[in-house]
Amino acid sequence: MDSTQWFTEEWAEQGSAISLKTVQILHSEQSPFQRIDIWETETFGTLMTLDGLVMVTSRDNFIYHEMLSHPALYAHENPQSVLIIGGGDCGTLREVLRHKEVQHAVQVELDERVTRVAEIYFPELCASNHDPRARFHFLDGIQWLKDAPDESYDVILIDSTDPVGPAEGLFAEEFYAQCHRALRVGGVLAGQTESPLFHLPILQRVHRSLKAVGFAAIKTLQFPQCTYPSGWWSVTMAQKSGDLQLIRSENPAHWNDIETRYYTPEIHRAAMALPRYVTRVLAEQPPTT
Amino acid sequence: MDSTQWFTEEWAEQGSAISLKTVQILHSEQSPFQRIDIWETETFGTLMTLDGLVMVTSRDNFIYHEMLSHPALYAHENPQSVLIIGGGDCGTLREVLRHKEVQHAVQVELDERVTRVAEIYFPELCASNHDPRARFHFLDGIQWLKDAPDESYDVILIDSTDPVGPAEGLFAEEFYAQCHRALRVGGVLAGQTESPLFHLPILQRVHRSLKAVGFAAIKTLQFPQCTYPSGWWSVTMAQKSGDLQLIRSENPAHWNDIETRYYTPEIHRAAMALPRYVTRVLAEQPPTT
Repeated sequence: MDSTQWFTEEWAEQGSAISLKTVQILHSEQSPFQRIDIWETETFGTLMTLDGLVMVTSRDNFIYHEMLSHPALYAHENPQSVLIIGGGDCGTLREVLRHKEVQHAVQVELDERVTRVAEIYFPELCASNHDPRARFHFLDGIQWLKDAPDESYDVILIDSTDPVGPAEGLFAEEFYAQCHRALRVGGVLAGQTESPLFHLPILQRVHRSLKAVGFAAIKTLQFPQCTYPSGWWSVTMAQKSGDLQLIRSENPAHWNDIETRYYTPEIHRAAMALPRYVTRVLAEQPPTT
Repeated sequence: MDSTQWFTEEWAEQGSAISLKTVQILHSEQSPFQRIDIWETETFGTLMTLDGLVMVTSRDNFIYHEMLSHPALYAHENPQSVLIIGGGDCGTLREVLRHKEVQHAVQVELDERVTRVAEIYFPELCASNHDPRARFHFLDGIQWLKDAPDESYDVILIDSTDPVGPAEGLFAEEFYAQCHRALRVGGVLAGQTESPLFHLPILQRVHRSLKAVGFAAIKTLQFPQCTYPSGWWSVTMAQKSGDLQLIRSENPAHWNDIETRYYTPEIHRAAMALPRYVTRVLAEQPPTT
């Protein structure tokens, strides 16, 4: 493998790496927060990396974006007001705005440059950025939630990077408590929660934190994501009241007009079935201290 | 990345690659059929490659082996007689023999050296090789099926390498026709059918071939498999008569004594839910010629 033609992400502490064959680098900059690189790849379309970690490729981002957004929105009876934390590439926002129930979608992304670069290199993900229901704020999501009025959102989506550096606080109990407070009755939170193979302790901690701050129901969804560490990823949903059993898309009137590539109502239910070893770890009682 | 410390598999024609950090090479030989290498890796345990392609790692093989065997065996009312084609590492055989209904498990693997090497380096996968119900034949599986009596097996599992070289014939319509003939009424076939992301045309061809030779029901299962191309894999099941709706493990008496790590009855049903883009391709009518 000639390293000059390949982008490689080493999966830290996991003794493994993925490589994508590149044609050329299209853009590279140091924003106030991170290094942003855009590559043309041979078979994965356009690739965006932040600090050298894969964020999105044209080829496989649809799975992640659909699974972060549609299960949460279809688990809610009437998702009118949606908050996205992170999500700078705007792919999650695009999926959210496919739902006609949504009246306001607020996106709070720390790094404006990620969105500006995405607008140039991933125009398909930014196709709904000018939807009149969308609002952009380039601010710290943690502070945004602290300042948010009580019961102001129906759905909060946490479309973050890994829980190191700036995104660490987006996996913290205090942050989840603010989300819980800012959600209306029946409100649904969904966040990306890393790999069930590589990061099971993170998943376990997220479940415990969500429970501790008072969420009534917690469900993790699993799905493949080729270019993320281990090729296997998860989203965890939590509901302020309710049991996350509603799958509104099972009523054809509620979903057939939404053009998905991965998500279906069957996939929604199926993704909540977890491997036995994962279920066991999530069922463990936290140590008493 | 210092290439001397990494094993890399380039995913041919997919412009991508996975790398596993190695500690040392433990064994290397050229068998009459292929090159067999065994590595100690840093975080994936022991790794076996055939002609430079990942076959099995200690860390993640449980998903593949469980999903190839348990859904097929639990889809059958009473799987007494099981044939495994390929499966040289013996991990599938071990899972098959966990089922007390199984009276005979015949494994037909082309390359005896794969099994002999697995016995040394993957003793946990070979733990049931001396089970009196197991029989080994180191022969060509295609010829074995040609010679098999009509209606002689309840379950046939095809645990093959990729459909190039010696394994190509294991994806051919003629081979499936022989499997259909050799299965008893209600018999179930299951074979590995590659990545839903990288190899969708193969999946489509397998479905058409299985239908063409007369199988009554065909279902593909999807699951993560970190070290296989794209990190996402599939098994396709076909039933000679019946609809593959039986999941016998849903009766606790039939499964609670089987120690699985990935498989559960819920996972069995869930794995049959396929992404919308996959379902669409599989529903396409073959071209009329």
